[in-house]
Amino acid sequence: MERVKENDTVILFDPEKKKKYFLNLSLAKGKFNTDRGEVKLSEIVGKPYGSKIETHKGFSYVILPVSIYEFIMNKLNRLTQIVYPKDAGYILLRLNVKPGDTVVESGIGSGALTSVFAQAVGENGKVISYERREEFIKNALSNLRKLNLESRVEVKYRDISEGFDEVESADALFLDVREPWLYVDKAYRALKTGHFLGILVPTVNQVIETLKELKKHPFMDVEVSEILLRKYKRVPERLRPEDRMPAHTAYLIFARKLPEDVRIEWEE
Amino acid sequence: MERVKENDTVILFDPEKKKKYFLNLSLAKGKFNTDRGEVKLSEIVGKPYGSKIETHKGFSYVILPVSIYEFIMNKLNRLTQIVYPKDAGYILLRLNVKPGDTVVESGIGSGALTSVFAQAVGENGKVISYERREEFIKNALSNLRKLNLESRVEVKYRDISEGFDEVESADALFLDVREPWLYVDKAYRALKTGHFLGILVPTVNQVIETLKELKKHPFMDVEVSEILLRKYKRVPERLRPEDRMPAHTAYLIFARKLPEDVRIEWEE
Amino acid sequence: MERVKENDTVILFDPEKKKKYFLNLSLAKGKFNTDRGEVKLSEIVGKPYGSKIETHKGFSYVILPVSIYEFIMNKLNRLTQIVYPKDAGYILLRLNVKPGDTVVESGIGSGALTSVFAQAVGENGKVISYERREEFIKNALSNLRKLNLESRVEVKYRDISEGFDEVESADALFLDVREPWLYVDKAYRALKTGHFLGILVPTVNQVIETLKELKKHPFMDVEVSEILLRKYKRVPERLRPEDRMPAHTAYLIFARKLPEDVRIEWEE
Amino acid sequence: MERVKENDTVILFDPEKKKKYFLNLSLAKGKFNTDRGEVKLSEIVGKPYGSKIETHKGFSYVILPVSIYEFIMNKLNRLTQIVYPKDAGYILLRLNVKPGDTVVESGIGSGALTSVFAQAVGENGKVISYERREEFIKNALSNLRKLNLESRVEVKYRDISEGFDEVESADALFLDVREPWLYVDKAYRALKTGHFLGILVPTVNQVIETLKELKKHPFMDVEVSEILLRKYKRVPERLRPEDRMPAHTAYLIFARKLPEDVRIEWEE
Repeated sequence: MERVKENDTVILFDPEKKKKYFLNLSLAKGKFNTDRGEVKLSEIVGKPYGSKIETHKGFSYVILPVSIYEFIMNKLNRLTQIVYPKDAGYILLRLNVKPGDTVVESGIGSGALTSVFAQAVGENGKVISYERREEFIKNALSNLRKLNLESRVEVKYRDISEGFDEVESADALFLDVREPWLYVDKAYRALKTGHFLGILVPTVNQVIETLKELKKHPFMDVEVSEILLRKYKRVPERLRPEDRMPAHTAYLIFARKLPEDVRIEWEE
Repeated sequence: MERVKENDTVILFDPEKKKKYFLNLSLAKGKFNTDRGEVKLSEIVGKPYGSKIETHKGFSYVILPVSIYEFIMNKLNRLTQIVYPKDAGYILLRLNVKPGDTVVESGIGSGALTSVFAQAVGENGKVISYERREEFIKNALSNLRKLNLESRVEVKYRDISEGFDEVESADALFLDVREPWLYVDKAYRALKTGHFLGILVPTVNQVIETLKELKKHPFMDVEVSEILLRKYKRVPERLRPEDRMPAHTAYLIFARKLPEDVRIEWEE
Repeated sequence: MERVKENDTVILFDPEKKKKYFLNLSLAKGKFNTDRGEVKLSEIVGKPYGSKIETHKGFSYVILPVSIYEFIMNKLNRLTQIVYPKDAGYILLRLNVKPGDTVVESGIGSGALTSVFAQAVGENGKVISYERREEFIKNALSNLRKLNLESRVEVKYRDISEGFDEVESADALFLDVREPWLYVDKAYRALKTGHFLGILVPTVNQVIETLKELKKHPFMDVEVSEILLRKYKRVPERLRPEDRMPAHTAYLIFARKLPEDVRIEWEE
Repeated sequence: MERVKENDTVILFDPEKKKKYFLNLSLAKGKFNTDRGEVKLSEIVGKPYGSKIETHKGFSYVILPVSIYEFIMNKLNRLTQIVYPKDAGYILLRLNVKPGDTVVESGIGSGALTSVFAQAVGENGKVISYERREEFIKNALSNLRKLNLESRVEVKYRDISEGFDEVESADALFLDVREPWLYVDKAYRALKTGHFLGILVPTVNQVIETLKELKKHPFMDVEVSEILLRKYKRVPERLRPEDRMPAHTAYLIFARKLPEDVRIEWEE
């Protein structure tokens, strides 16, 4: 039975209103006020997840752990376009990210993908994130803190035009920048041989430029993909998809580093 | 610099033929024969990943680590329909699987999703897999062994109509069985409150039956989704999608366990 | 050079505001008022399409013919869910509708598909539409009148549970009703042998029931399809799909009538 | 009751083998041989569609009319990539093609879209098709002849770099050529004002170039789209999509001609 710890972010779920309150215990102080009354934070700490807590007016909330999916979709503070879970999940697999890995990325954006990486690499792994815009760093770290993942992320306040500090040491490298083709050579250098580079771009023009650059370097297993997620209405008697869906988030590009002196033709 | 260990599965990549050989060092013995000559296994162990090895005929292979994605897509021995990476990545995020977790699943199938779970939970986590068909277990374990993930998986040779051994202790629970609606109550019992149940079914009839059953139990955050992955030809001068793509693998259903006495209406 | 006729519906297009005014000359009277001044209707009649007309305040509108696509998408008065052009175009081809044909349909809905059929069958064809709800008939005919297609449509104010008047005489038959499986036998009777039945339903439950019924009758070439249309932003420097798109309109079912004594198995 | 005429193309359908034979009565002579015996062509003429005919061995075929959909998908002789029905149906609606229209196109390809246009414009309409490759013309006309649509199509054996003969007289104009941007000005000139230009291109690079050119001319209502058609297995007890589907056929671009002196900004 897991119990709420002092630094946790928890959800207080109001079953009647079907409303979730995200509550960061290390940041909040004293009491949490809702329109159904107050909850003392000190009473939440130590309670088992899944148990209930009453407000001073007698209303009841369920204490739930926060999943990274719902945090990204509902609570993450966004200063930028984020990487959505449908894409992030596939990125994890295609980059072969696993516990203990060192993942290098640029930029940090709002920290959505950073938090997914940070959760996946576990306590023994780390994420090294290059970002030059201070307001993005500040915001992303604030998001990561609420997920208790901040300690796994090392931010380098720097433009990657100067290159990465890592040399043949990144288990995976991800570029989410406007002109990724400018940094393909630097990413190549930072990556371990046989490991994967991932790139996210929103437009086809960027895919074209990136592919042109990738062809100049020793890469294999190059893939360009896009993912569509379609949700269904949850009505068994009249099952049908939702009326609308995202038509596009981004194109995903993957490539695997070969040794410098090994070139292969991968044009179809 | 990572070096090849005695039990690793490695890829020998022939850059000229653009061909990958998957080679399990613990299962193979002595020499590996290709049409370009022999390689001594003892010479591979200890070499750095990304380095090259020569056959006795003087041809050169690159030694690459195996990614779980390529193993599932190219090398996994299939006795059943598998869970594809596009779905598996999203499942990881929606079930909030992370290092240290205990994931319960049924059935084991060919071990594709099992291996994804096993990689994600890390050395301190585990996957408990219920399966009643011995040939599936044998095959799945053989696949897991090649990824060095076998030790993280505990197989229970049993039909889940008798229920799961776990009580309120699964961090995540996944059902990939023909009639999942028969086991929703048992899955509910095994899960920690606030944690997620995932279900995969290929037909809409199964989605309908599963939703009907889910409505009888205390679940929230119910989602029914399908994911389409479209790949592009990697030709920057004539960028366009591939001609054909998978039209369907499966529908994914997710639901989060509420306490027994908390019911909410989630029909739209 | 085509000129505007007395009963035409025309578009007055304001290039500065990029706004279209749909103007039915037979229904309107005297003057047309806009916030940029008045236009006399009598001055529009006789003008060539593509020419310009000035308001009394000196602003200029371009006179454009109305396309059925833009009328359906922007101007059709909707009392019901409509059949969208992406589906209507495919229906035309799958039902092999052509000039001179007699198309039978039920119900009339808001007249969107009816108008597409009416345009396609031409002056020598006709659409026979069964509908029992008077307000739908009234509204649909009003929509058809604005397209000058009313004369090609014969409305039968009747429930099709009594069957169709047509016997082996419909070139194509289309069902857009809640429970189409109840009318498959009646549709079969109305159709010419070798011709096509089309059915539109929004839910998978309806697809299932319809397929079950279709299997009891002599049909071949049975198809169940859905169509996704994705639009792109029209920016050549940053080409990418729109952010959102329709996820679902309806499932389309097609079947071709065989002679009564000819049965084939069409299960996969 | 429609009867088979001398020049018709008919289908002889073998219900047992579920096999269709396409038979052009004007091209064939004397007898039609199948592995189930001979049929005399003179006995088919005059028979009602939907009736049966026996081979000299006593086997029975159903005589069916040919739909343009099945001809394109199954019987059209292809020298080029064709325009598929999912796209052709939408093109008909977006170009507002109707009985009596004059549709101008280039090139003729294998005649798939040409035949769709020819069927839609009816006896009083026509299709003018510019094509410079003689083998394409020959093949396309042969396809059109089998559908009895040849007389509605006028082929101009010419490169459109010299422009179209039509001046402000095309009700709709369609370009299916490698570099459509080279002919946008010529297409503009041929079209009636307020009418639609349609363009089909397989790659995003071509979409980019075409949009750049379209922006230099007076067009409105510009759309870039792609259509995905997904079929389902026809099994009501286990309803699910087919395993694979086309991922891409082409991008469709539409634009409407404005008067020469009317320019609007349509960048989003």
